[in-house]
Amino acid sequence: MSERDLIRDYFAALGARRADVPCGVGDDCALLAVPPDRQLAVSIDTLVAGVHFFADCDPQALGHKSLAVGLSDLASMGAEPAWATLALTLPEIDPDWLGGFARGLGDLAAAHGVQLVGGDTTRGPLTVSIQVHGLVAPGQAVTRAGARPGDLVCVSGTLGDAGLALRQLAAGKAPSATLRRRLERPEPRVGLGRRLAGLASAMIDLSDGLAGDLGHILAASGVGADLELAALPLGPEGATVVAETGDWALPLASGDDYELCFTTPAARRAELSALATPDCAVTVIGQITAAPGLRCREPNGDLWPLDRSGYDHFST
Amino acid sequence: MSERDLIRDYFAALGARRADVPCGVGDDCALLAVPPDRQLAVSIDTLVAGVHFFADCDPQALGHKSLAVGLSDLASMGAEPAWATLALTLPEIDPDWLGGFARGLGDLAAAHGVQLVGGDTTRGPLTVSIQVHGLVAPGQAVTRAGARPGDLVCVSGTLGDAGLALRQLAAGKAPSATLRRRLERPEPRVGLGRRLAGLASAMIDLSDGLAGDLGHILAASGVGADLELAALPLGPEGATVVAETGDWALPLASGDDYELCFTTPAARRAELSALATPDCAVTVIGQITAAPGLRCREPNGDLWPLDRSGYDHFST
Repeated sequence: MSERDLIRDYFAALGARRADVPCGVGDDCALLAVPPDRQLAVSIDTLVAGVHFFADCDPQALGHKSLAVGLSDLASMGAEPAWATLALTLPEIDPDWLGGFARGLGDLAAAHGVQLVGGDTTRGPLTVSIQVHGLVAPGQAVTRAGARPGDLVCVSGTLGDAGLALRQLAAGKAPSATLRRRLERPEPRVGLGRRLAGLASAMIDLSDGLAGDLGHILAASGVGADLELAALPLGPEGATVVAETGDWALPLASGDDYELCFTTPAARRAELSALATPDCAVTVIGQITAAPGLRCREPNGDLWPLDRSGYDHFST
Repeated sequence: MSERDLIRDYFAALGARRADVPCGVGDDCALLAVPPDRQLAVSIDTLVAGVHFFADCDPQALGHKSLAVGLSDLASMGAEPAWATLALTLPEIDPDWLGGFARGLGDLAAAHGVQLVGGDTTRGPLTVSIQVHGLVAPGQAVTRAGARPGDLVCVSGTLGDAGLALRQLAAGKAPSATLRRRLERPEPRVGLGRRLAGLASAMIDLSDGLAGDLGHILAASGVGADLELAALPLGPEGATVVAETGDWALPLASGDDYELCFTTPAARRAELSALATPDCAVTVIGQITAAPGLRCREPNGDLWPLDRSGYDHFST
């Protein structure tokens, strides 16, 4: 048995067993049966050692996160996850590492009904690319382009937790278990995303930071937004940092939150309260404007444009 | 505009414009409309600099080959190519390199009616992962598992050309333009693969060498095969090398041919002649046997098992 076959055995039966996979891992292609009343939503993401994660990180957490970033993209379109493929480049064959990675990936896949249906393993610098495939009814997918003036701007969960964990690690401090979990094992908001199909007018997942990612909605929709800084949802540790330092860059500009940011018509505000769960709040943080640009209102009432100078102001 | 956006502009409109892409490059997911009477065939492949190609190779050839290896997988299932996604990891932003890579990828995509619908660009060691998506009628896909005793074993084109080019490069010799094209710009046998749906009983594309890849068909089908060495189709340069050295490892075990190897019932031999084109012969090279294992008949009539010792015999 070749090394390639050996590795493939780790990934031959990961995640859910689905009836809509006529041919899975082990042939030249996987065959997938897309229901006639569904469109396919696909997204591919790459994580590179030394860029997106520490090369010596827990492989189980890496397996989880590698799939989570893709499921978060499906969530932000309101799609139902179905299948995944894996392109894994490894510097060496380490059974312990492979077992941990496969467990992290497989557990999250199973939790979301996703079957790993194919992949490629190659030798080289540690790199993980995963493509996720989801299903959504025609016309129901939520893109970035539907925000209209007057719409409410909302986010799920809390902002800046992963960024705070990264800051602490960079400073040589060990983050709390809560913050570390937020950085290493983000929970993609798949259920919330699906419930938002038909309610959200535009949606994106927060991978690069609220200001930049919301900026993609504004650009695609041809609108602007005013945010209320006091409304930004913070975890207890993030709230302490912001209260002590006034550093709004933490919730505005740190990446890896993997929360959903969406807009919805103001007339539908009452429907938002039904979306929250004990684990995941839904918070209105601002409003879409016809005037382009992104502005933030400080707790004292001052409104600052969030261009570079505005951002520098907030990050001191 | 961020570097990421800049790079994305190179890939935002590559290949064919298809009507079945409700949402392409630029949102969290691409949305694809799979026809109700088709299944989806997907395959992901990774090429790593220094492993699968020379880091200083022509970027246009790399763009071509990165997509060609995936289209070859679709061909080997008898599927019709439709869409592709790209995960590109780059050590630096070089507009000339990106332009060449995008041209090579885009030209081949357009030639096969494929639209690039999404991707991810990251910074890191040069690595290209491409997922291809094809369409095939339910039950028409050709897997590796259908070969039956008595079936003919066939290959397209000629074997060992890319391997000979690699050998010459490793020896410091410049390959002929023909051999170099076979190594750097393989033509996936998409049309032939589609015509073989309904005729081939099993099929695989030759990426790792005939003996190993045919071995996958034999293992999946639970059969063996006898090959006639004298029947192996060789190009003029490969034929000279084999005639002078008796080195059958060139057609049997060198990779990167990207030809199709398939089996078909002997009763359908007459239909094979209609499959060949001026650019691509179809050659019967042996027969499937109930006895497991792969054997090769030398021109003198001797039959050798192609296990490691047999292989060593042929490679001297």
